[in-house]
Amino acid sequence: MVQTVQKHTVIGQRVPDVDGLAKVTGQAQYAADVKLPGLLHARLLRSPYAHAKIKRIDGSRALQLPGVKAIVTGADFPQASRTAQVPMGEVEIGMYYMSKLMMARDKALFHGHPVAAVAAITPELAEQALDLIEVDYEPLPVVLDPLEAMKPEAPLLHEDVFTQGLAGRSERPSNLALHMQLDRGDIEAGFKTADAIVEHTFASQVINPGYIEPDADTAMVYPDGKIDIWPNTRGIFFHRNQVAVLLEIDPGRIRVNPTELGGAFGGKMYALLSPICVRLSEKTGRPVRITLDRDEVLRATPPGTQAVISIKIGARKDGRITAMQGHMVYDAGALPGSAVSAGVLSGFAPYKAPNMKIEGFDVVTNKPRVGSVRAPGAPVSCFATECVIDEVAEAIGMDPLEFRLKNAVETGDPQPNNISFTKIGLKELIGHALKHPAWTTPLPEGKNRGRGVAVGFWRGGANTSSCHITVTGDGTVHLTVGTVDMTPARTGFAQICADTLQLPLEKVRVKMGDTDTVAHSDNTGGSRTTYTMGTAIYLASHELIQQMKQRASQRLGVAPEHIEYSNGVFHVSDIQDKSISFKEIALLSVRGGSTLLARGTNPALKAAPAFCLHIVDVEVDPETGKVTILKYTACEDVGRAINPTMVEGQMQGAAVQASGWALTEEMMFDQQGVLRNPTLLDYRMPTALDVPMIATEIVEVPAEDGPFGARGVGEVGVVPVAAAISNAIYRAAGVRLRTLPMNPERVLAAIKAKEAAKKESKR
Amino acid sequence: MVQTVQKHTVIGQRVPDVDGLAKVTGQAQYAADVKLPGLLHARLLRSPYAHAKIKRIDGSRALQLPGVKAIVTGADFPQASRTAQVPMGEVEIGMYYMSKLMMARDKALFHGHPVAAVAAITPELAEQALDLIEVDYEPLPVVLDPLEAMKPEAPLLHEDVFTQGLAGRSERPSNLALHMQLDRGDIEAGFKTADAIVEHTFASQVINPGYIEPDADTAMVYPDGKIDIWPNTRGIFFHRNQVAVLLEIDPGRIRVNPTELGGAFGGKMYALLSPICVRLSEKTGRPVRITLDRDEVLRATPPGTQAVISIKIGARKDGRITAMQGHMVYDAGALPGSAVSAGVLSGFAPYKAPNMKIEGFDVVTNKPRVGSVRAPGAPVSCFATECVIDEVAEAIGMDPLEFRLKNAVETGDPQPNNISFTKIGLKELIGHALKHPAWTTPLPEGKNRGRGVAVGFWRGGANTSSCHITVTGDGTVHLTVGTVDMTPARTGFAQICADTLQLPLEKVRVKMGDTDTVAHSDNTGGSRTTYTMGTAIYLASHELIQQMKQRASQRLGVAPEHIEYSNGVFHVSDIQDKSISFKEIALLSVRGGSTLLARGTNPALKAAPAFCLHIVDVEVDPETGKVTILKYTACEDVGRAINPTMVEGQMQGAAVQASGWALTEEMMFDQQGVLRNPTLLDYRMPTALDVPMIATEIVEVPAEDGPFGARGVGEVGVVPVAAAISNAIYRAAGVRLRTLPMNPERVLAAIKAKEAAKKESKR
Repeated sequence: MVQTVQKHTVIGQRVPDVDGLAKVTGQAQYAADVKLPGLLHARLLRSPYAHAKIKRIDGSRALQLPGVKAIVTGADFPQASRTAQVPMGEVEIGMYYMSKLMMARDKALFHGHPVAAVAAITPELAEQALDLIEVDYEPLPVVLDPLEAMKPEAPLLHEDVFTQGLAGRSERPSNLALHMQLDRGDIEAGFKTADAIVEHTFASQVINPGYIEPDADTAMVYPDGKIDIWPNTRGIFFHRNQVAVLLEIDPGRIRVNPTELGGAFGGKMYALLSPICVRLSEKTGRPVRITLDRDEVLRATPPGTQAVISIKIGARKDGRITAMQGHMVYDAGALPGSAVSAGVLSGFAPYKAPNMKIEGFDVVTNKPRVGSVRAPGAPVSCFATECVIDEVAEAIGMDPLEFRLKNAVETGDPQPNNISFTKIGLKELIGHALKHPAWTTPLPEGKNRGRGVAVGFWRGGANTSSCHITVTGDGTVHLTVGTVDMTPARTGFAQICADTLQLPLEKVRVKMGDTDTVAHSDNTGGSRTTYTMGTAIYLASHELIQQMKQRASQRLGVAPEHIEYSNGVFHVSDIQDKSISFKEIALLSVRGGSTLLARGTNPALKAAPAFCLHIVDVEVDPETGKVTILKYTACEDVGRAINPTMVEGQMQGAAVQASGWALTEEMMFDQQGVLRNPTLLDYRMPTALDVPMIATEIVEVPAEDGPFGARGVGEVGVVPVAAAISNAIYRAAGVRLRTLPMNPERVLAAIKAKEAAKKESKR
Repeated sequence: MVQTVQKHTVIGQRVPDVDGLAKVTGQAQYAADVKLPGLLHARLLRSPYAHAKIKRIDGSRALQLPGVKAIVTGADFPQASRTAQVPMGEVEIGMYYMSKLMMARDKALFHGHPVAAVAAITPELAEQALDLIEVDYEPLPVVLDPLEAMKPEAPLLHEDVFTQGLAGRSERPSNLALHMQLDRGDIEAGFKTADAIVEHTFASQVINPGYIEPDADTAMVYPDGKIDIWPNTRGIFFHRNQVAVLLEIDPGRIRVNPTELGGAFGGKMYALLSPICVRLSEKTGRPVRITLDRDEVLRATPPGTQAVISIKIGARKDGRITAMQGHMVYDAGALPGSAVSAGVLSGFAPYKAPNMKIEGFDVVTNKPRVGSVRAPGAPVSCFATECVIDEVAEAIGMDPLEFRLKNAVETGDPQPNNISFTKIGLKELIGHALKHPAWTTPLPEGKNRGRGVAVGFWRGGANTSSCHITVTGDGTVHLTVGTVDMTPARTGFAQICADTLQLPLEKVRVKMGDTDTVAHSDNTGGSRTTYTMGTAIYLASHELIQQMKQRASQRLGVAPEHIEYSNGVFHVSDIQDKSISFKEIALLSVRGGSTLLARGTNPALKAAPAFCLHIVDVEVDPETGKVTILKYTACEDVGRAINPTMVEGQMQGAAVQASGWALTEEMMFDQQGVLRNPTLLDYRMPTALDVPMIATEIVEVPAEDGPFGARGVGEVGVVPVAAAISNAIYRAAGVRLRTLPMNPERVLAAIKAKEAAKKESKR
C-alpha cells in the first residue's frame, strides 16, 4: 500500500476544481470544439428496421450531390477476427462484435444500426445525401424480450453466435451467447436448514447513460499515413488500439488526442465513430467529423443493460443466511457482451453465505448493443438481492440492518467467485449507519411514508496509469497524465502531487497527454482512475524529489543521502541553514545534464472493493402512485477522501442518477424495436426538482493498495439506490415493487392489486 | 565522448527527410496556420523616424472604429530591469534592451521601431486603425555609420548606455557600448620580427537573414491566467522565459507550443511579438495573432551585423606568422549587443600566432537592432582576415594553402581567447584540399578567371537538450524532443534513435513537445542541436533498452544482466532461442508497473570547433564588373556525418547564402535611416541562376564530445565564402575587394581605379 509519513497539507482538503474556471468560462476544449482547416462533416445512415438483411447499398446518386465528398459502407471496413483483441490492463477486449456494431455488413441488427456514412462540406448537405442512398432491406422478424429470445423458436440474430455453456459450446447457433455459473457449498442442503425462504423475480428496463455532451469524433489522415484523432473517449490508448484493430493498421500510425468529456457515465468507451471518420478522411484527404444529435445518442449509442433476475434466499431464525440462489438473465442487445458477469459477482457479495449458486445468461435481442453504464450490471443484481434480503429479515422478524450486519462479509471472506476480499469496511459501515440519526430518528409525521435501506457493492478496477512531471524555472510543476479526465479527477491528481511534493496546490498544473507523448494508461472507468493514477503520481513525485536531491547534493557538496527535503527546501541533514530551495534547483535545471523529468506508473494493484449503504425516506401518493423522496442519506466507505467535497459530489451524483433509474428512466421500444422516447423530455432523467439534498456520510477504512488508502468512489454509489427506494415504498404503501422503473403506473397498479386482493380475502 | 560499439545500421545512411512529405503536401503546421475560434488580428504602428522623442500617443479615435478591440503602447509593458536575465544553457541573456526593442517607450530608435499595436477582427481593420492613432514625435538627428557614431559629437541614442571598457565604465553616456581586447605575447615585438606586414581595412553592410516565412505569433490568455503561445521561435523554453521576464509574470503560467519554421538562419530568436499578443489577448479575452508582412520583416526584424575591420598581419619569409592584429567595429543597430565578441574570437582562430592583439567595439546607431544571423559576426571577421592572409602569402611568395597549413592550429593549441582547442581537424582539412582536384587542376580556359581559397571557423555551441521516448504496442517508438526542428534535424534524430535501438528507421516517429510536457531544451542554433540532442537521444534510447531488459528478465526468468539485446530481440546470453522481441515487450507494456518511458538529456558538453575550407573559381567581366562563380567546392570537417545528404545540404545552402552576402545582398538605408530596398526583388538574395552546383567534400575527424563524433554543421559553411571569392577576384582581375557586397559597381570601380593608377604610373 502506498503510504507516506509526512503530514498531509493538501490531501483531505476541500479545494475547488482546478479546471472549474476554464469549464464555466467555455474555454475547455470538447471534441466538437476542435478546429481544423477544410473540415468535412459526416452523417450516418441508420437502419429503419430492428432486424433486416441488407441486400444492396447504392450511394451513386448521393455522390452526385454537389458538396458531397465521400461515402462509406460496411464493405469499406475489414471484419475483425474472433481473435482480434485490444489489451486493457490485465484483460483483452475482443473486437469481433465491435466491428459488426460499428457498421452493419450483411445484416442490420437493431433500429438505428449504421449502414453507411456520408462526408460533405456541411452537416446539412450530408444529411440531405443520406436520403439519396438506396438500400434494399429484407425485413426479418424481431425479438426484443430476452426471455423470448432464449426460446429455441425465437428469431435467430446471428448464424455465428453459439452458447458458451458449462459443458462447452452449443451445437447450433443461439441467441444465448453465454451461460455461466458460480457455486459454493451445497445449495439444496442450505435451503433445507433454512427457517424462512423468500424467492421472487425482478426486472429492469434498458436505460441510457444520460451524458449531456453528444458523441463527437474528428479524424485526419495525413499524406504520410499518420493519423490524428480527437475523439470522445474515456481512454486515449484503448481508443487508439481499437481503431488500429478495427481498421487493421499499426497503432503506431495513430495519435489520439484527449478532449474534455461532457459526461460519459460508462459511455464513450468504444471507438465506433473514429474508424468511420478515418476512412472518410482517407478518401477525401481532409479532416472529417461526426457529431451525433440527441436522437442518435438515445437511439443508437450503447445503453445500460436490461435484466430479469430471480433471487432465492434462505435464513435461520437466528439471522444466519443459509443459502443464496440467483438466476440472472442479462440482455446484451444486438451483439453478445452484457454486464452479466459483473451482475453475478455483485449481488451476493456483501453476505457470508455457506451455500451459493448463481447462474448468469447473456442473451442477444434486436435492441442497441449495451455498453458499460456506471457500475455495469450491479444495480439491478443488487436491486433484486437487497429486496429479497429485506423480505427475509421481515420473515424472521429481524431488523433489516441488524440482519445485514450479522451476515456482512469481512476482510478475508470469499467473494461469490471465492476470491478473498482484501481490506474492506462493510461491518464498520453498517455499524455507523445503525447509530446514525437518519436511521435512529423516527420518520417525520405524515401518511404513506416509509424508510428503506440497502447495501451496495462494487469490485472496482485497477489496471494501469502512467504520468510524468516536468518543472518550470519558477518552481511550477507540470504533471502530464495518460488518463482522460472525468471531473474531478484532475483536482485530486493535483492534490496528490502537491501534497507529496509538499508544495502549495497552485504550483501544480495538470494536463492530459496524447498517445505519443505519455506512457500507457488504461481507461478512465471502473472507479480506477484516482486509485491507480494517484499511485503513479505519488511515485513520480518521489522520483522528482530524488532527482532534485542529486542536483542539491552537487550544489551543497554533500552526498545525496545526506540531503533532506521538506516544504520546498532541500537541506543538509541537521544543518537547516545549508540549503537550496525547490525553486532554485528548478531554475538551475536548464544546465547540461541537470534537466528534470520524473515518471510514474502504478505497479499491479489489487482492486479495492467498495461498499456503501443508503437510507431513504419516501412518501407514496396512493391516488397517483407517485413516489416522493423526502430524505436521502448515502453512507460509503471511501477508504480515504483525497478531497471530501469531490467525494461527496460523486456520492450525491450517483444517488441522483440511480434514483432516475429507480423511478422514471426507461427506454421504451415498440414491437418493431423502434425507440418511442428518443428525447430528454420523454426519457425522464431526474432534475433538481425531483430529488432533495442528499446527505453524505464518509467512512474511511483504508484500502490495502492505492494512494493513502483511497478507494474508487465513482460507481458504487449507484448500486443500492433502487433497492433502498423499493424497500421504503413497501414500508410506506405495503407493496413490493419488483420491476424498474417504479413509476406511478407501476406503483398504482401494485396498490390497486393489493386492495383487490384484500377485498378478495374479505369475501 | 558518446560512442557505441555496435555496427551502425541507420547512422551514416542517406535517408530522406522524415518530415518531407508532410511539408511538401502542405500538412505541416506553421505559426500562421494555427486555427483558433474568435481569433483577433493585430498590426503594429511603427515609427516613421529613425530617431525621435515620443511626446504623446492617443489611440482614442482608433478605438472608436467598429471592429477594433484593443490598443497597446509602450506604457502597457514593464521595463525589464538591467538585472533581468533569461538562462540559456550556461549563460544568461539580458532582457533590458529587449524590452526597449519590443516596443518604443519615450524614444523611437530606428525607422520601423514599434510604438503601438492594434487588435481588430480583421487585419485590414487593424491596419486602418493604425492611421487613426495620433503620435507626436520630436525628430532627433540620426547617426547611421558606426565610425561616425563613435565620435563624441555624434547624436547620442541612449542616456543610459555607457562604455564598458578595459578600464571599467565610462563617465558619460556614449554610443560605444563595449570595448573589448584580447592579447597574446608582445604584438609590437611580433611585427618587428616580420619580413612582410600587410594591413588593410574592410567593411560590410547590414544583411537580412532572408527566411521565407514571415514572423507570426499567436497568444491566448485564459480566464484562469494560463497562457498559450504559438510563436515563430527557435526555442520554446527560451521563448517562454523571455515572455515571462518581459511581462514580469511566472513562466509557469505560460505554455509555448512549437510550430514548424519556414527558415530562421539566426532570426526568430527573440520574443518580440508574443508579449504584445499576450497583452492584447488579456485586454480582449480572445486569441490574438500578429503576422508581419515582408516589408516589416525586412525593415524591422533583427538583421545581420555590419562591421568595419582593420587587420594587420606579419610573417617571416619561412612562412611563420609572427603577429596578428585586429581592430573590429561592429554596429549593433539601435541597442547594444552586436556579435562583436564572436567576431573577435573567430577571425584569427585558425592560426598559430605567438603574438596577437584584437580589439572589439560594440556601437549603437539608428538602424534596426541586429540579431544573430548564421554564424553571427564570424563571416566578416574571416573575410578581413583571410584576405590579408592571402596577401601576406603573396608577399612572401608562398602558396596560400601551404601558408595556411604551416600556421594551422592543432588540437590543444590556444584559441584567440587562449582556451585550448578540443580535438580539431584543420590540418587534415587543408591537407585534403591540397590534394583535391578543385585545387590541383588548372583553371578552365578563359579570360579574367581566378581561383580563390579561404578557411572558415565556428566555435559551435553546446547548452542543453532533452527528450523522452514512449513505445506503442506494435513496437513503434515515439521520440518527443524539446527543441524546435529546423529541417533536417528531425531526420537525424530519428536516425540516431533507430540506430541506437537497432530498429528500422520507419519504426521511429519524432515529435516536438511543448514546454509543459518535455524537459528543458535550449534554442535550436549555434550548430548545437544535433550535437546535444543526438546525445540525449542516444542516452534515452539506452535507458529504454535497460527498461525493456527489466521486463524481459521477468518474462524469461533470468536476471537483467543476463539479458542481451540485438536487432529488436532480447535474449538470454548464449541462448539465442530463449528470447522475447522488442515488439512483444512493447505489447506487454500496458500491464501494471510495466509501462515504458525513457528520458535523455545531454551532460555538459564541450563545444565542438568546426573548420571548413572553400575553393572557388570565378570569372570577372571587366566591362560590367559582374562576378560569375564558375565552380565552387566546399570542404568541411563534420566530425561524423549522421546523414551525409543532409550534411551536404547544409554545406551547399551555407555556400549559396554567403555568396549572396559576398556579391549582392545589402540593406540600403537613406540618410534618414529609411530602408530603400524592403522587398525581395530589391534585396538581392542569390537564386538558382546565380550559383553553380556546389561540390562538397566531407572530412571526418571525430569531435571529442557529441554523438558518434558529429560536429555541428549548420553555420561554419557561411564563414569563408566572401574571402574565398574576394581572393579569386584578385587573381581574375588583379583587384582586391575589401567592401561587401562585391557587386558590379564596386568591382568595376576597383578595376577603373587600377587602370587609372596604371596610366598615372606610366606618365
